[in-house]
Amino acid sequence: MDRRSFLATAAVGGTAAAGLAAPAIAQGKRTLTLVTTWARGFAGVHDSAQFCADKITEMTDGQLTVDLKAAGELVGALESFDAVTSGQADMYHAADYYFIGQHPAYAFFTVVPFGMTAPELRAWYYHGGGIDFHDELGQIFGLKSFIAGNTGAQAGGWFRKRIESADDLTGLKFRMPGLGGSALGELGVSVQNLPGGEIYQALSSGAIDGTEWIGPWADEQAGFQEITKIYYASGFHEPGAALSLAMNRDVYDSLTPSQQSVIQSASAHAHEYTISLFNVNNSTALNRLVASGVEVNVFPDSVWDAFAEATNSVLEANREDPLFSAVYDSYLASMKDTSSWFDQSTGEYARQRARVGIV
Amino acid sequence: MDRRSFLATAAVGGTAAAGLAAPAIAQGKRTLTLVTTWARGFAGVHDSAQFCADKITEMTDGQLTVDLKAAGELVGALESFDAVTSGQADMYHAADYYFIGQHPAYAFFTVVPFGMTAPELRAWYYHGGGIDFHDELGQIFGLKSFIAGNTGAQAGGWFRKRIESADDLTGLKFRMPGLGGSALGELGVSVQNLPGGEIYQALSSGAIDGTEWIGPWADEQAGFQEITKIYYASGFHEPGAALSLAMNRDVYDSLTPSQQSVIQSASAHAHEYTISLFNVNNSTALNRLVASGVEVNVFPDSVWDAFAEATNSVLEANREDPLFSAVYDSYLASMKDTSSWFDQSTGEYARQRARVGIV
Repeated sequence: MDRRSFLATAAVGGTAAAGLAAPAIAQGKRTLTLVTTWARGFAGVHDSAQFCADKITEMTDGQLTVDLKAAGELVGALESFDAVTSGQADMYHAADYYFIGQHPAYAFFTVVPFGMTAPELRAWYYHGGGIDFHDELGQIFGLKSFIAGNTGAQAGGWFRKRIESADDLTGLKFRMPGLGGSALGELGVSVQNLPGGEIYQALSSGAIDGTEWIGPWADEQAGFQEITKIYYASGFHEPGAALSLAMNRDVYDSLTPSQQSVIQSASAHAHEYTISLFNVNNSTALNRLVASGVEVNVFPDSVWDAFAEATNSVLEANREDPLFSAVYDSYLASMKDTSSWFDQSTGEYARQRARVGIV
Repeated sequence: MDRRSFLATAAVGGTAAAGLAAPAIAQGKRTLTLVTTWARGFAGVHDSAQFCADKITEMTDGQLTVDLKAAGELVGALESFDAVTSGQADMYHAADYYFIGQHPAYAFFTVVPFGMTAPELRAWYYHGGGIDFHDELGQIFGLKSFIAGNTGAQAGGWFRKRIESADDLTGLKFRMPGLGGSALGELGVSVQNLPGGEIYQALSSGAIDGTEWIGPWADEQAGFQEITKIYYASGFHEPGAALSLAMNRDVYDSLTPSQQSVIQSASAHAHEYTISLFNVNNSTALNRLVASGVEVNVFPDSVWDAFAEATNSVLEANREDPLFSAVYDSYLASMKDTSSWFDQSTGEYARQRARVGIV
């Protein structure tokens, strides 16, 4: 979409934006509509979107005023992508893997099973080629995207009985979206893809046998510990789920260089803010869950083996798309290098710090 | 220092700032002088300072133009703190542990031995009380400080012979600054505190028996692999060294809220950028070092035990300062929580990902 059609669209755009447009332009100010895939108040992820909005507004002294529309307020959560590419909204805050239907390679800009942790992803993104691939995807759809948050490692989830072997997965009705869910499907799990608001009831009624959600902080707020005490802190499916801020490319191109720079730094700041928020809150929530009787389990090696085999099958099947394949190769090479360095430096350090009893 | 005396000082301040002052003010623009503790071009850390400077200039469209003076260009590296508190310069980019002579608690805002990794530090800083303590220190000295980078875990260093037991440390002439160096001193090491530019010659001539520097990337550039092949990738002394941007408090208070917000986000963005730069470059440099015959060792448990005992003694000795003690308590409590969460989630995941052979 060229700039003229963007301006035309903006003038007839979402109600709130249209309502503000005349006075805003009169003062040389501009209102940007941000749609998100999160319900208002949704812990951590809505906070991250609001943080981006506030920082952009603050840093530009209101020259760009970001008006956040939570899921359902302007468009439905999963309509965010199309709303921004069509110009109905100016930007979205989301987990890009919601949009693997648009392009499978979007998965890498949130998380893939057995993929990168948050520090590995960020290293690849900034200095290992990731940002160029994100831009290449953006060229296809008319977007300019930025990493703008991360939930950190997501928990393995809640079960009604312990998982002692891969056989225990067969026939299990388990909620897990995305490529992780596809991998579970290969292991005979009956995969359910319920939205957040329906999980508690489904788990409580026995409609599902288990669920993953995010991590101790969000899981505790959802109340799953009231239904079962069998928890797995570590999982294979989302070792560090990034959040993205994406702008309509024409809107982005119409900004001044200083405004573009503000969008970039607001996103990076939101990443810092969000991942730290999740890590602090997950750690204290896990303490509370354990104190309330939740049992923290680890999957046995044989189950991890099964997860790995199924994941490999799911990821390799996507290689028929050449861009997916190119991103995956770059991603794997970077992960191999950075994970080795992390293991030999921070990993060894953390093992020793725990062994000597400091933590 | 009040604002009037700041303005008077600025008018007679560093040559470059004074030269620019008149036209800058005429256009409503302002030049801020940034001094650093890094030589120009110093890998990673100078990059981080330059990144901060560029982002502030860019985001404000030059309303704030940051003029970076590397170590020695306006004042010597370790004079940066006094230059900013006195108003000779407007801001510094440094590792705050260079200023433990001003206050021992500054150590926590870079790194302490057996302390936090970068993700742990950031979690504590943003959401665990760290930022309030940084502000409390700032109140004492008239500074407003921000975390603006991290080197990630620093390597254990280079030795002429392997360290098989703590006895091998006795009498060793080893270069290590800061509290890590103090801990080594307790173990009978003859601790040398050489600046970066003098280490290669000292190691080469045998004036020292070994040295730590930063990590594979910077170590390789320094050329230590030409002198010895015995390397330790993990060390106890700097598990994640943060870098700080600090402004003269009166200068900061004289900025508009949007300019203050820009300084904050530029610092957070620099953190993201810098730690990723170190992690990517460390991982590829370590591969090159190994390919060139460098031997990556791990200290035996008994040596880690000795490091831990000596560290505890050094840190506890500083508790006579009440603020140090308060910061340390907050820091330890947060580290215990976050490290436990990291171990149970990301730690278990990383172990399994390596075990199944994906990386």
